Amino acid sequence: MTFDPTALNTREACVAADRADPLSGFRDEFALPEGVIYLDGNSLGALPRAAGERAREVLAREWGEDLIASWNTHHWFELPVRIGEKIGRLIGGHGGGCVATDTTSINVFKALAAALRLQREDRPERRVIVSERENFPTDLYMAEGLIEILDDGYELRLIDDEAGLEASLSDEVAVVMLTHVNYRSGRMWEMDRVTRLVHEAGALIVWDLCHSAGAVPVDLTAASADFAVGCTYKYLNGGPGSPAFIWAANRHLPRVEQPLSGWWGHRAPFDMAVGYAAAEGAAKFLCGTQPILSLATMEVGIDIALRADPEALREKSLALTSLFIALVEERLAAHPLTLITPRDSEHRGSHVSFRHPEGFAVMKALIAEGVIGDYREPEVLRFGFTPLYVGFADVWDAVEAFRRVLDEELWRAPEFAVRGAVT
Amino acid sequence: MTFDPTALNTREACVAADRADPLSGFRDEFALPEGVIYLDGNSLGALPRAAGERAREVLAREWGEDLIASWNTHHWFELPVRIGEKIGRLIGGHGGGCVATDTTSINVFKALAAALRLQREDRPERRVIVSERENFPTDLYMAEGLIEILDDGYELRLIDDEAGLEASLSDEVAVVMLTHVNYRSGRMWEMDRVTRLVHEAGALIVWDLCHSAGAVPVDLTAASADFAVGCTYKYLNGGPGSPAFIWAANRHLPRVEQPLSGWWGHRAPFDMAVGYAAAEGAAKFLCGTQPILSLATMEVGIDIALRADPEALREKSLALTSLFIALVEERLAAHPLTLITPRDSEHRGSHVSFRHPEGFAVMKALIAEGVIGDYREPEVLRFGFTPLYVGFADVWDAVEAFRRVLDEELWRAPEFAVRGAVT
Repeated sequence: MTFDPTALNTREACVAADRADPLSGFRDEFALPEGVIYLDGNSLGALPRAAGERAREVLAREWGEDLIASWNTHHWFELPVRIGEKIGRLIGGHGGGCVATDTTSINVFKALAAALRLQREDRPERRVIVSERENFPTDLYMAEGLIEILDDGYELRLIDDEAGLEASLSDEVAVVMLTHVNYRSGRMWEMDRVTRLVHEAGALIVWDLCHSAGAVPVDLTAASADFAVGCTYKYLNGGPGSPAFIWAANRHLPRVEQPLSGWWGHRAPFDMAVGYAAAEGAAKFLCGTQPILSLATMEVGIDIALRADPEALREKSLALTSLFIALVEERLAAHPLTLITPRDSEHRGSHVSFRHPEGFAVMKALIAEGVIGDYREPEVLRFGFTPLYVGFADVWDAVEAFRRVLDEELWRAPEFAVRGAVT
Repeated sequence: MTFDPTALNTREACVAADRADPLSGFRDEFALPEGVIYLDGNSLGALPRAAGERAREVLAREWGEDLIASWNTHHWFELPVRIGEKIGRLIGGHGGGCVATDTTSINVFKALAAALRLQREDRPERRVIVSERENFPTDLYMAEGLIEILDDGYELRLIDDEAGLEASLSDEVAVVMLTHVNYRSGRMWEMDRVTRLVHEAGALIVWDLCHSAGAVPVDLTAASADFAVGCTYKYLNGGPGSPAFIWAANRHLPRVEQPLSGWWGHRAPFDMAVGYAAAEGAAKFLCGTQPILSLATMEVGIDIALRADPEALREKSLALTSLFIALVEERLAAHPLTLITPRDSEHRGSHVSFRHPEGFAVMKALIAEGVIGDYREPEVLRFGFTPLYVGFADVWDAVEAFRRVLDEELWRAPEFAVRGAVT
């Protein structure tokens, strides 16, 4: 089916669209609280109902009863490779290897270090890493830490937009690191075209898929990408801080070396050999012992994502974000809201952000009304639309709540002015 | 009370000692399977009964109901610092700062990089890292990876024993990295004396406490240690792969820099600033988003450890290991078993290892008899004694099972010869 956002101009039409939604069955697989419209799955995905049972099983049966034997009998040791292979299927990773491990930050360090090392062999004079000023900061922080420890004249250059990227691609550039969908604006890079440009300039690319995996179509193999990293706790619903992933193309893997060379990445970890010898394939990205309870439980979310048709997900995601933009601009036209997410669906991820001069208080008031989005400095209201469990009537109701908050100036209540930690 | 292992020469005497044990109440806090004597808590600690409820709460209530708000309302973001402070109390860490985060391997990298960096300022010519050939391999692998990326003439020198350590302490040595209790032999370094020797030689020390924390007395502050790392899934019963910890002395913390500079270690992570600025104190060792389900559940094990009297733990641990050694040597004297753990209690951790030419098959046969220890190459049978839940009658019964396996040659059964992954 094809959704026409312009036809969804009444709540009844939205309810009807939900009934006709081929993905509607997924909503019952998630335990969302009553009375809440959850538009923050781009920050922390919702709890799959089956996750509780899986966690109970890992604790009571695997850890509690089978104890140390579970490393083998329940395949704990293999989880990073097994789940990584599944994540690989979600991101077009068949032309490479993927493991689920550690955090996105740590994996950025590994991928960037590996890419720079390849370039040091192939194009030894290149010393520039290009990234975006608007990238999620941890990617830039990890690049800083790597540059500092390499102490070899590397430099991080930040671009602001696509023109800036193209202008930056000189023969000094070793690696380009971009986040496919921007965490704040929701803007999406054209992965195929950008990867081609980067390769034409003799550079390698590291894609951060944190706001892409499970939400927008990604085909790393078709794009001929070099490296990718990402998290599993947003659109993949893996649970708070569930382990991240890292992927590299098969053409690079045999030569890849990464500095966080711990025993899980060793060719034969239980030989307890004194010298390090990297495993084959993506397993060489593994390092230390993984948090099994978080890792095993997260597989439930990955398995749900694998059952969803990616085209249907994308179609619904765009319909939800288009509808949200249209309704906000139509029904909240009197208020100082500025859309910072691309209208062009080719460049839009699965969340929508508006700037408002009182963004912080507005978001707090909206949450008090039962619509959970989040706030990002400066003045950005962010609304995520996970097509697995957000419906069209949710969008309608969220916009109505948004309208009440602004029309009735509910955000002026003193309790919404207090700044605390916001995640 | 004081245990006298030589008086425990009947099963009845062991049962009586269990009744008199001031720590006996802790056993019921763990869910150990019926009919099993668990002597592998030095590899994976047992399940605290309260962990299931805590995990359920984190999943169903915090993640499921309160969703993204839990980062603040349930203090998810603060867990590494809060739990790290608790672990600090267990290891005499008041003269420094401790956080619970990432894996031991990753934390070895951070501690070693930070220590080398301090030395590069203070004693810039030093380029040697000293460690033990018998160290747990991942510590050596991480040092290798760090040396490679530093690419600045660093060298890893491995020593074999205390004499080797003393001989190694030249003015070329920047950092010494030792594991306090050896994973295979159970041999324990004298932390005070060794730290003093290392300091006298102008070097810094990184202690790995994986086989110490929760099992033997550790006072990093009294020893004037520089850095420490360790895991929480052995004697601290945090659960499979639960996050590790890292500690640094207060005198170093203000100058400490570590290369895995992710957003959780930033001074103001939610400012989303482009440049990295490290947090104060041990929080600068944080990097990426942590696996909350594993982290929060692990706190249950830490809280149990905090309630146990460390002197009583040590006294019982030594009594258990002494009894095991005495009974094995007395009742299994006819068999080719070689004790590789120090008899001298000053140099013994909380596990005991014997070499046997058919060690692999013997351990498999013993596990089939309900006594769970583990096997480490080459030919080493390893038995861990967690004083919180192992009793004297367990030791008696384990030795009797061990005797049956050897006297009746149960280990010769063909199924015990098959080598698979052993953890």
